[in-house]
Amino acid sequence: MLSQTVEYSLRAMASLAYSPDVLVPTPDLAETTHVPVNYLAKVLQTLGKADLITGRRGVGGGYKLARPAEEITLLEVINAVSPIGRIKSCPLGLENHGPNLCPLHRRVDQAAEAIIKVFGDATLADMVTGEGTKQLPLCDAKRTQELTINASDT
Amino acid sequence: MLSQTVEYSLRAMASLAYSPDVLVPTPDLAETTHVPVNYLAKVLQTLGKADLITGRRGVGGGYKLARPAEEITLLEVINAVSPIGRIKSCPLGLENHGPNLCPLHRRVDQAAEAIIKVFGDATLADMVTGEGTKQLPLCDAKRTQELTINASDT
Repeated sequence: MLSQTVEYSLRAMASLAYSPDVLVPTPDLAETTHVPVNYLAKVLQTLGKADLITGRRGVGGGYKLARPAEEITLLEVINAVSPIGRIKSCPLGLENHGPNLCPLHRRVDQAAEAIIKVFGDATLADMVTGEGTKQLPLCDAKRTQELTINASDT
Repeated sequence: MLSQTVEYSLRAMASLAYSPDVLVPTPDLAETTHVPVNYLAKVLQTLGKADLITGRRGVGGGYKLARPAEEITLLEVINAVSPIGRIKSCPLGLENHGPNLCPLHRRVDQAAEAIIKVFGDATLADMVTGEGTKQLPLCDAKRTQELTINASDT
């Protein structure tokens, strides 16, 4: 349902949410997210332009979240790459429809509303805290255990 | 949110639902749906392959719905063009995730579930009967009035 670019963006952002204060090099991010490095580089550029991540080039460079993971919703990530828009007027421009949608476009708009709710209610922090789950995004069993131990330390 | 091809498919099917027993020529359908005729021809081929419409070439030819509009959901139309899939296992193939999704992919799956419900609950007939609305899909004021008069005749 989501485009590959959207899926990859969500993976990249979730991955960066694990270490918010560290600049993660693109090749490392590519390995964690299982995304081809060239494709990922383009995704990261888009996320950077949307001010969701900040980066530094060169040795020791990489990317990190531009804001705390608690303040970034999945919807913001998706909208940076492929905006989910509500339908505000007839897509065919029919004059008698105007802002009153026909049953077909009302349904399409309802679907948009539903997705906006699902992704707007969830932050990146919600994804990586691991509450109530044994699976953390992008993490195999070993990495999940490490992250869970670190979290219980704090 | 929906691709242009999906939007065009929904328009084409809604348009055919107005005259279920009539073969509608592609150029006529293109005019009603506001879709470029070559693009529409490809969309119609896809809908035909999915057994949602049947057609005949040549003089007097065109397309009509393969089944009653009451029996075709919007979801079937969308799935013929760009399937909406539930996520059944970790898209990264992480062994410890298996069928238990992480919070990120659980959200993505929830979004798919929500859309499937919105479009699965609505048939093409629901779109064109015009109950509770003054706007009919693809129709300007004049055409809406004609169709409403015809409907009240029966």
